[in-house]
Amino acid sequence: MERKALEQKLTGFFEELHMHPELSYEEYETTERIKRELAAAGIEILQIPLKTGVTAIVRGAKPGKTYGLRCDIDALPIEEETDLPYKSKTPGKMHACGHDFHTAAVFGAALLLQERKEELQGTVKILFQPAEESSHGAETVLETGVLSDVTAIFGLHTAAYLPVGTLGIRAGSVMAAVDRFELNITGTGCHGGHPNEGVDTILVAASVIQAFQSIVGRNLNPFHTGVVSVTRINGGNTWNVIPDKVELEGTVRSMEKDDRIFIERRMREIAEHTAAAYGANAELLWYPGPPATVNEKAWSAFAQKVAEESGFEVVPQRNSTGGEDFAFYLEKIPGCFINVGTGVGYPNHHPKFYADEAALTPAAEYLEKLLVEALRQ
Amino acid sequence: MERKALEQKLTGFFEELHMHPELSYEEYETTERIKRELAAAGIEILQIPLKTGVTAIVRGAKPGKTYGLRCDIDALPIEEETDLPYKSKTPGKMHACGHDFHTAAVFGAALLLQERKEELQGTVKILFQPAEESSHGAETVLETGVLSDVTAIFGLHTAAYLPVGTLGIRAGSVMAAVDRFELNITGTGCHGGHPNEGVDTILVAASVIQAFQSIVGRNLNPFHTGVVSVTRINGGNTWNVIPDKVELEGTVRSMEKDDRIFIERRMREIAEHTAAAYGANAELLWYPGPPATVNEKAWSAFAQKVAEESGFEVVPQRNSTGGEDFAFYLEKIPGCFINVGTGVGYPNHHPKFYADEAALTPAAEYLEKLLVEALRQ
Amino acid sequence: MERKALEQKLTGFFEELHMHPELSYEEYETTERIKRELAAAGIEILQIPLKTGVTAIVRGAKPGKTYGLRCDIDALPIEEETDLPYKSKTPGKMHACGHDFHTAAVFGAALLLQERKEELQGTVKILFQPAEESSHGAETVLETGVLSDVTAIFGLHTAAYLPVGTLGIRAGSVMAAVDRFELNITGTGCHGGHPNEGVDTILVAASVIQAFQSIVGRNLNPFHTGVVSVTRINGGNTWNVIPDKVELEGTVRSMEKDDRIFIERRMREIAEHTAAAYGANAELLWYPGPPATVNEKAWSAFAQKVAEESGFEVVPQRNSTGGEDFAFYLEKIPGCFINVGTGVGYPNHHPKFYADEAALTPAAEYLEKLLVEALRQ
Amino acid sequence: MERKALEQKLTGFFEELHMHPELSYEEYETTERIKRELAAAGIEILQIPLKTGVTAIVRGAKPGKTYGLRCDIDALPIEEETDLPYKSKTPGKMHACGHDFHTAAVFGAALLLQERKEELQGTVKILFQPAEESSHGAETVLETGVLSDVTAIFGLHTAAYLPVGTLGIRAGSVMAAVDRFELNITGTGCHGGHPNEGVDTILVAASVIQAFQSIVGRNLNPFHTGVVSVTRINGGNTWNVIPDKVELEGTVRSMEKDDRIFIERRMREIAEHTAAAYGANAELLWYPGPPATVNEKAWSAFAQKVAEESGFEVVPQRNSTGGEDFAFYLEKIPGCFINVGTGVGYPNHHPKFYADEAALTPAAEYLEKLLVEALRQ
Repeated sequence: MERKALEQKLTGFFEELHMHPELSYEEYETTERIKRELAAAGIEILQIPLKTGVTAIVRGAKPGKTYGLRCDIDALPIEEETDLPYKSKTPGKMHACGHDFHTAAVFGAALLLQERKEELQGTVKILFQPAEESSHGAETVLETGVLSDVTAIFGLHTAAYLPVGTLGIRAGSVMAAVDRFELNITGTGCHGGHPNEGVDTILVAASVIQAFQSIVGRNLNPFHTGVVSVTRINGGNTWNVIPDKVELEGTVRSMEKDDRIFIERRMREIAEHTAAAYGANAELLWYPGPPATVNEKAWSAFAQKVAEESGFEVVPQRNSTGGEDFAFYLEKIPGCFINVGTGVGYPNHHPKFYADEAALTPAAEYLEKLLVEALRQ
Repeated sequence: MERKALEQKLTGFFEELHMHPELSYEEYETTERIKRELAAAGIEILQIPLKTGVTAIVRGAKPGKTYGLRCDIDALPIEEETDLPYKSKTPGKMHACGHDFHTAAVFGAALLLQERKEELQGTVKILFQPAEESSHGAETVLETGVLSDVTAIFGLHTAAYLPVGTLGIRAGSVMAAVDRFELNITGTGCHGGHPNEGVDTILVAASVIQAFQSIVGRNLNPFHTGVVSVTRINGGNTWNVIPDKVELEGTVRSMEKDDRIFIERRMREIAEHTAAAYGANAELLWYPGPPATVNEKAWSAFAQKVAEESGFEVVPQRNSTGGEDFAFYLEKIPGCFINVGTGVGYPNHHPKFYADEAALTPAAEYLEKLLVEALRQ
Repeated sequence: MERKALEQKLTGFFEELHMHPELSYEEYETTERIKRELAAAGIEILQIPLKTGVTAIVRGAKPGKTYGLRCDIDALPIEEETDLPYKSKTPGKMHACGHDFHTAAVFGAALLLQERKEELQGTVKILFQPAEESSHGAETVLETGVLSDVTAIFGLHTAAYLPVGTLGIRAGSVMAAVDRFELNITGTGCHGGHPNEGVDTILVAASVIQAFQSIVGRNLNPFHTGVVSVTRINGGNTWNVIPDKVELEGTVRSMEKDDRIFIERRMREIAEHTAAAYGANAELLWYPGPPATVNEKAWSAFAQKVAEESGFEVVPQRNSTGGEDFAFYLEKIPGCFINVGTGVGYPNHHPKFYADEAALTPAAEYLEKLLVEALRQ
Repeated sequence: MERKALEQKLTGFFEELHMHPELSYEEYETTERIKRELAAAGIEILQIPLKTGVTAIVRGAKPGKTYGLRCDIDALPIEEETDLPYKSKTPGKMHACGHDFHTAAVFGAALLLQERKEELQGTVKILFQPAEESSHGAETVLETGVLSDVTAIFGLHTAAYLPVGTLGIRAGSVMAAVDRFELNITGTGCHGGHPNEGVDTILVAASVIQAFQSIVGRNLNPFHTGVVSVTRINGGNTWNVIPDKVELEGTVRSMEKDDRIFIERRMREIAEHTAAAYGANAELLWYPGPPATVNEKAWSAFAQKVAEESGFEVVPQRNSTGGEDFAFYLEKIPGCFINVGTGVGYPNHHPKFYADEAALTPAAEYLEKLLVEALRQ
C-alpha cells in the first residue's frame, strides 16, 4: 500500500473509532468495525471465545516463532470537550485514553505485515483487546490460551508528555501495580453524649489513616515507589450517634512485586492492631488490579534499537503510578510496552485529551518493523 | 377533688395522651385535649401566640408574686414496643420520654391549685410547652413574653433511674449544654495515585479528629465535664480519587457557660491550624442547642425541703450529658428542674420506656405544694 | 490552759517547727521537738517502731471507742522566699505545705484533750506522721498496726484558697489517686537515612501519646475526673540514628477506684497494641501512689456539724488532682480529711506559701471538739 | 614504572595509611606521608592554604584544559575489628570508609600521569582532600579557589556491594543531600495533674512527628526519594511536670534540589501550624550538609566508555541515602563520582570493613586513563 493511502486509511479508521466510543466489555460495534477492516484486508481472524475484541493472525510463509502485538479498544465514560471534527457522537463517552489511536496503529501494522507475509519467518498474533479500562480485559484474553505460544509481546500507549516523533522506552517497572482496598472499622456504637458506652469508630478510623502514612515514609525502601491513598471514608448519619461502623476505601500503587505484598501486609497489621488498641475491629478487603508493568530488559533494548533505526527519538519512558493491564501479559511473556509521543497536551483521561494523527502512520510502521525484526531474531 | 377521683382523672388523661403521641410543633390534638380538660376544670387559658401548646393561669385571691410551672407535651418518632393496654395508637410515634406523664402531673397540680385559689397569695402560670424534643420549644415560648413577670419556675422530668417515691434534686448544672457542629475540610482534590498533586483532605480530617481529643483531656479543667464527639464523616465517592471535601458533623456537651465557649474556640483553632498545616481549609459551623440546665441554689434547697415534707425520698439528681430546653428558662428565671422517680427500667427514648402511673398523683400533689409554698415566700 | 497561753504555746511551737524544716523520713529533730512538748504536757507516747514520727495517746477515764487524729510533720526541698521573722533556717528546705501548722494544731488538740482526760469516754490516738511528701509515710504507719483499733480517723490540711475562719468539708473523693508510670518503647534501631531497616520508635511513642488522649475524652465517664499526662520523653542521642528505645514517664490522676484500674488497663492496651502496629514493643511500668482521698459520708456530715457549732463557716471542700497519703488510712478506716482556711494566698508548695497563725488555735479547738464529740457517739 | 613495582608501591602506601588513621581535620601525619611520596615521585605540590590535605599538579607538556582528580584522606572514630596484618595501630580510629584506598589509588594515577607528562595536553590537579567525614572538607577546598580553572572533576569511592573488576557508574543523583535539623517546641509548662493550666508540649511534639509522616508519602512525587527522620526527642525531667520545651533533632535526605527546599518548607509549615493548633510555638533550625551527588550526563557516559575500554564491567551505580561532600564540587563543576568494586563484604563504616588490594592498581590505571582521555577531548 502506498504511504499516502495508508495514511488515509488509518486516519479514517482512527476518526471512525473516535466518533463511536464504547465502554469496557461493550465494544460490540468496535469489534465489528475491526473485523470488517481486517476482512477487507484479507487478514485472518482467529476464532477465540471473546464476546468483544478480536485476534487476527498473520502467518509468515517461512517457519519461525510466534510474536504478539496488542492494542486495547475500549473508551471511557467521559463527556468529550474537544472541538475535533471527529468528536465523539456518543454523549458521556469518549476515547480519552487513546485506545482508538492504539487500534488504528496496530491495525496499520497488521496491514503492513500482511503485505509482507511471504517474506516473514514465523507468525504474528494481533490482539485487539477489550476492557483495558476495567483492568480485567487482559485476564479474559489470557484465559483463552491464545497467547500460549507467543515468544514475546509488544504493546503501545499514546503519551501526551512526548512530541510526535518521540518514543518512550525503558526496561523495568514503568507503570504501577494498581490495587483497591476496602477497610471496615467496627465497634459498639453509642450516643454521642456518652462516648464511654461504646467505641469511637471514627477516631479509630482517623488513627488508622494516620498510621498508614508510615508505610511509604518509614517502611518502604526510600528508593522504591509506593502510594497508599484512602480516598473514601463514610461513617455515621446523624449528629448525636457514634456509628458502629466506618467504611474506608482507597488504592495502593507499587512498582515491585515484594513491595506490593509488603504494603498489604503492613496495612493489615496497622489496621488490626490500631483497632485493637481502641477495642474495635478492622477488616481489610483487598481487590488486586493489574501488577506492575515490567518491560523485559533485552526486548526493551531491542525495541529501542529498532526505534532508533526507524528515525525516532527515544527517551526514557516516564514512570507512572497509573496501571495498565498489559502488565498481566508481561507477567507471563517477555516483551515491552512502548510510549508513543502523540503531542504534548492534555493528559490521558482529560475531556480535552487529543492524539495527533501525524503520529499514527509512523507508529504503525514502527510496530511493523518491530515485529519483522523480531521474527528475524 | 377526692384523692381517688384525682387519681382516676390523671391516670385517664395520661393514658389518653400516651395513646395519641404527636411530634414537636405538631401537637394540635394534644393541645386540644389539654384545653378541653382545663376548660372542664374552669381553669383560665391565657391567649398567647402559640400554634401548639397552652398556657393556663391560676390567679390566687390574694395579691402576690407570679410563679411558673412547666411541662412539655410532644412525643418522639419511635415505634412503641411495650405491651401497655394504652400503647400508642399512632405507628412510628411514641411518648418515649414521659412528656405525657409530665403533662398529666402538671395538669393535676393545676387542678389542685385551682381548687385552692381563694387562699393563694399570687399567681401561677402553668405552661404546657410544645416541641421540647426539637430543642426550640422553650425559645418559642420565651419570645411570647408570657414568662416576663415570673419570679421562679419549676419543671419536672420522669427518671427511669429512680424508684417511685423518690425525687432527684440538686443545685447547679444537672444537664448539659447540647450543641451541634459541622466541619468542612476542603482542599485541592487529586488522583489517588498522585497524592502530591493535591491535598489529602481525608488525612487532614483524621488529624483534626485526633487533635480534638486533646480538648477534653488537656484543655478542660479535669473536674469539669465536656464531650466532643465527631459522629459523622463523609468524604470521597470512589476508590481512586482523593476528594476535595470531607464533611464532619458531631456534638459538644458542656456543663459550664465558659467551657461551652472555650470548647468551640479550641475546636476552631485546632481545625483551622491543623488544616493549614496540610495546605487545606477548615470551616466550623456551630449550631447552638439548649444551654446547660442550671438549678438555682436557693430554689433547689426549697424544692428539696418541700419534697422531704411531702414524704418523698430525695437523692442527688443524676448528672446527664443530655440536654433539656427548660435550660432556656433557667438562663433568665431562677428555678429548679426536678427528676421524678417513675420506676427503674428502660431509659428515656427506649421503645420499651415506661412510666409507672403510681408516681403520677404524688407528683401532682408535690408540684401543687411546691407552688403553694412558693407563693407563701 | 488559758486561751492566751495556748495561743502563745502553739504559735511558738509552729514557728519553731517552721524554722527547722526536715524532709521525708529525716524528721529526727522534729520528732524530738514533738516528743519533748508531749512529755512536758504529760501526754503518753506510744512505743511503736517508727524511726521518725510519734504516736501519742490520750486515754479517757471512762471506757469507750478509740479514735485517731493525724497530722504530718515533714517539709519540702524548696528554698523559702517569704519575709517571715520565723523563716526557715535551713537552706533549700521549707515547710511550704503547712505541715508545721498541722503539727502545731494537732498538738494543741492533744493538749486540750489531755486536760479533759477525766471526762472522756474512750481513747484518742494522736499521730504525728512522717514522710507524707514521699507518699509512703502513711503506709509505714499502717504497717505498725497502731491504728488497728481505731473507729474513725481525722486529719487536716491548710487551705490557701480559704480565709481564716472557714473550713472546707465534703463527703466523697476530695483528692486524687496519684500514680506514676514509665513506658518503654523498644524496637530495632537503624540509620536515620534507612528507616526501612528498623522501627521508628520515636514515631511509635508519638502515636501512643496521641492515642492516650482518648482515655479521658472517650473512655472515662464524662462526669468523672481523670488525668493522663506524659511528662517526660527521651529517645535517641544523635541526629542520624533512629534509637532502639524511647522512654516515657508521667502521671495518672483519678478519683474513683474503678477508674484508676481502668485507666491503667487502657494505657496498657493502647501502648501494647499501638506498638505492635509498628512492629515495636511497649512495656508499661506502674508505680502506684496514694489512692483517692475519700471522706466517709457520715463522718463528713459529723465534721461539718461540729464545725458549724464551733462557729466556722463551712464550704464544700475543693476538688484536687493532688494526692494525700491520708488516703491510705481512709481506705481502711472511715473518717474525714478537712481543709482549714489559713488565708487566701500563694498555693501550697510555693516558696512564698504562708499559713496565717490566726487560724491555729481555732483549728486546735475544733479538732479537740471533733474528738470529744466523736467519743460521745 | 613497571606494573609489579607500581602494585608494590601502591599496596605498601595503602597499608601504611591504613595502619595510621587520622580523623577529619587532624590528618597531619597523613598529609606528610602523601607529600613525602609526591616529592619522591617528583610531582609538584601546589601551595594552597590548607592545614591538612594536599593538592598536587601534573602539568602536561602541551597546552590544554585543566581537570581535577580527587580523593579524601580522613578516617573514622571506629575501633577496627579486622584481622588484617596492617590493621589500625591507633585505638578507636580506623579507615573504615576506604579513604586509604582512595588515596593510594589517586596517588597511583598521579604517578602514572607524571610519567606521561610529556605527551599530556593540559593539566591535572590532584586533590587529597581532608575532612570528608565532617561533610565540610570540600567546602574548605573550594574556598581556596584551587578548582576555579577545572573543566571537569572525578572522584571515586570503594563499593562493598561490587566485586573487584566492576565499576558502578550512573548519571544523575547517586547520593543524597544530607541535612540535619533541630526542632524546638515550646509552650507554658504546668503541673502534670493540671494539664489545663499550660500546654502539653509533649503532645504537640507527638502531633508534629505524626504530621511529618505525610511529607514523603503525600507531598513528594512518588517516584522521588525523600527521608524525614526524627532521631532524637527530649522533653521533661520528672514524672509530674509537663515541660515547657521539647527538643527534637533529625535528618532529611533528598535527591533533587527542589525536593530538598520543598521538604524543609513543608516541615516548617507543619511544625508551626501544628504547634499553633495547640497554643505552642515551634522553631525549626536547619543545618544543611552536602547536596545530592549528581553525576553529569556526558562525563558519566565518558567515564563508562573509558571503563569498558579498560576491561571493567560497568553496572548502574547504586543509589544511596548517604551523603558525600564530593557533591559540593559537582554543584559547580561537571564530573562523575565513580564506585570502585572492592569486594562484596561488610559495608562502609563497619568495624570489619575491608577493601581488597587487588582492586587498587586497576583503579589507579583506570583513573590515569580517564584523565588522559579527558585531556584529549
